[in-house]
Amino acid sequence: LDVMSVTVSVEAARTVAARALIAAGADASAAKIQADMLIEGELRGRRSHGLQRLKVLTERLKAGLAQTRLQPILTWMSPSLLKVDGLHGLGPVVCDEVLRHLISRTQETGIAAATISNTNHLGMLAPYVEQVAEVGLLAIALTTSEALVHPWGGREALIGTNPIAIGIPAKPIPVVIDLATSQISVGQAINHLRAGEELPSGSALDAHGNQTNDPQLAIHGALSPFGGAKGYALGLGIELIVAALTGTATGKDVRGTLDASSPSTKGDVIIVLDPARTNPCWSDDSISSYLRTIRNSPPAPGSSGVWIPGDGSRRSRDSALQSGLKLSSELWDLICSLADTQHKTSIHPKRQT
Amino acid sequence: LDVMSVTVSVEAARTVAARALIAAGADASAAKIQADMLIEGELRGRRSHGLQRLKVLTERLKAGLAQTRLQPILTWMSPSLLKVDGLHGLGPVVCDEVLRHLISRTQETGIAAATISNTNHLGMLAPYVEQVAEVGLLAIALTTSEALVHPWGGREALIGTNPIAIGIPAKPIPVVIDLATSQISVGQAINHLRAGEELPSGSALDAHGNQTNDPQLAIHGALSPFGGAKGYALGLGIELIVAALTGTATGKDVRGTLDASSPSTKGDVIIVLDPARTNPCWSDDSISSYLRTIRNSPPAPGSSGVWIPGDGSRRSRDSALQSGLKLSSELWDLICSLADTQHKTSIHPKRQT
Repeated sequence: LDVMSVTVSVEAARTVAARALIAAGADASAAKIQADMLIEGELRGRRSHGLQRLKVLTERLKAGLAQTRLQPILTWMSPSLLKVDGLHGLGPVVCDEVLRHLISRTQETGIAAATISNTNHLGMLAPYVEQVAEVGLLAIALTTSEALVHPWGGREALIGTNPIAIGIPAKPIPVVIDLATSQISVGQAINHLRAGEELPSGSALDAHGNQTNDPQLAIHGALSPFGGAKGYALGLGIELIVAALTGTATGKDVRGTLDASSPSTKGDVIIVLDPARTNPCWSDDSISSYLRTIRNSPPAPGSSGVWIPGDGSRRSRDSALQSGLKLSSELWDLICSLADTQHKTSIHPKRQT
Repeated sequence: LDVMSVTVSVEAARTVAARALIAAGADASAAKIQADMLIEGELRGRRSHGLQRLKVLTERLKAGLAQTRLQPILTWMSPSLLKVDGLHGLGPVVCDEVLRHLISRTQETGIAAATISNTNHLGMLAPYVEQVAEVGLLAIALTTSEALVHPWGGREALIGTNPIAIGIPAKPIPVVIDLATSQISVGQAINHLRAGEELPSGSALDAHGNQTNDPQLAIHGALSPFGGAKGYALGLGIELIVAALTGTATGKDVRGTLDASSPSTKGDVIIVLDPARTNPCWSDDSISSYLRTIRNSPPAPGSSGVWIPGDGSRRSRDSALQSGLKLSSELWDLICSLADTQHKTSIHPKRQT
């Protein structure tokens, strides 16, 4: 494969991404929060939630489908239940504001939940639940997305890739779980297509409902739920919980995270709980010996070892913070042109073939 | 296969099961609640949570590991957060009491959660979340269990089969999701062993960590998480959420649902939410057209159709309510002997070979 790539310092990428958002109409502080979230996607090795999302976000800002002037409307329906109308703000900007309120309220009441509508794509859920876990609280986050996944036994894409994320305080680092309920993401299918690689078996159906390893056919078919009927049930459950609580759309009516033409009609639900409130013996060291037991347990034959969810992202992040972000030249050129900046030449990225 | 079976009326089975619990020391109302839950397992085709659990429950009552004299201690830590010490009551008895309080509180506040410790096995989670959904509220239930599942990449059984259940109000019937995070249950492995059948591929490892289809080897090895690394992450997340919030055990320290020698050290977490509180357009008909779209969507080649989670259990239940419960003669004789009853002969079960 012969793709030109550049290695860019994380700070340069942050600056240029924020500048692109500002050029599209975002105010500076919102642009920084959104850019940081895209950079997190790159740092954690989740490119599908990285800088490749920037173009659509700038288009949505220019089209008025995303805005940064109005604050979200936060309404406490009871001491522990927060209803949020994001007024089509950027996802990470709305969510940062919501998390501040959920954390502060949970420190008083032991539990607080938010139901979020009219808000653009949050991006990866992992950083949000991690942020909550880092202050000693437990978080569960659910979100819906465009219908890309077929029901088990069916073949039509009717359910979102609906991720669930869980953050749990632990020493030395929180446990951070973040999983889409599809076997693979659309971004992965596109990456396999570009790389000329086959998809893993069981990850998608073609338009006729037959299993396929061909990413091109998968893109015109449907992604499979992870784990068969159980993953289907879980993904559908998330779709229904989120739609019921937020009043947002279901199935093919969910739009606005991948396009630049529709308002965002997906929803998000975040629940925060304080273990110290109901568990008198709780400390963030409580579960650490159990986690050590798992990490140190014998690997299965052929396995490289046993990991706790979030370990891989953290290694990827630590490494990228040192060595910089490796991006395709095409993507970096695009970001620079969106930022309408001369920055591109001033940072002298190393070009590699 | 040559196993004697009997068909017993549901009412006869209810009566005899309750009598067995009373003979072991349970009071009559608690015995009825517990017996009904075991009958639900049979009715829904989930035999692993059915009458085969009765023997251990009676032994636990006799050994003082389960009791029905003391009410659970319910403490509201804040308006929406309930801490429950079950004082080693029977699971369904404690949980029924907890659900009454959660439902009533959620009707006031829109959200209420319970963290439950020192309580015997709840049984299937499906009937609890269904009960909540039937009064128009949404429920999420999580519970831990004995360590039977290996971490992904590992081979030692260190994680429970930790189920998650979700109930969502809908017309004509609620959506009821209830899934263990293992590929199969230990009960299924035992049933395959008895029937002389191989396990489905990918459901278990032998004691050396190699995949096996042999139920005998699986029972001495570890069950695999459903859906690979994602199912592992979800099962671990449930283990940690429940342990953190309830102060109950993790991993191999979880005991007391399969044995008659240890106090119950698992925990349960139930969260109830009112969609009407944050979604002004909510009615239990809101998601019904989406569910119809899924039910009516085209099946994949070779599939018998598309189902909504809970449909299968309901069909099984409706059918069994009409035709009675088909039990092995061995199990029915055991239950009758536990009940120390002549009932056995008075109901004239049809014996079949």
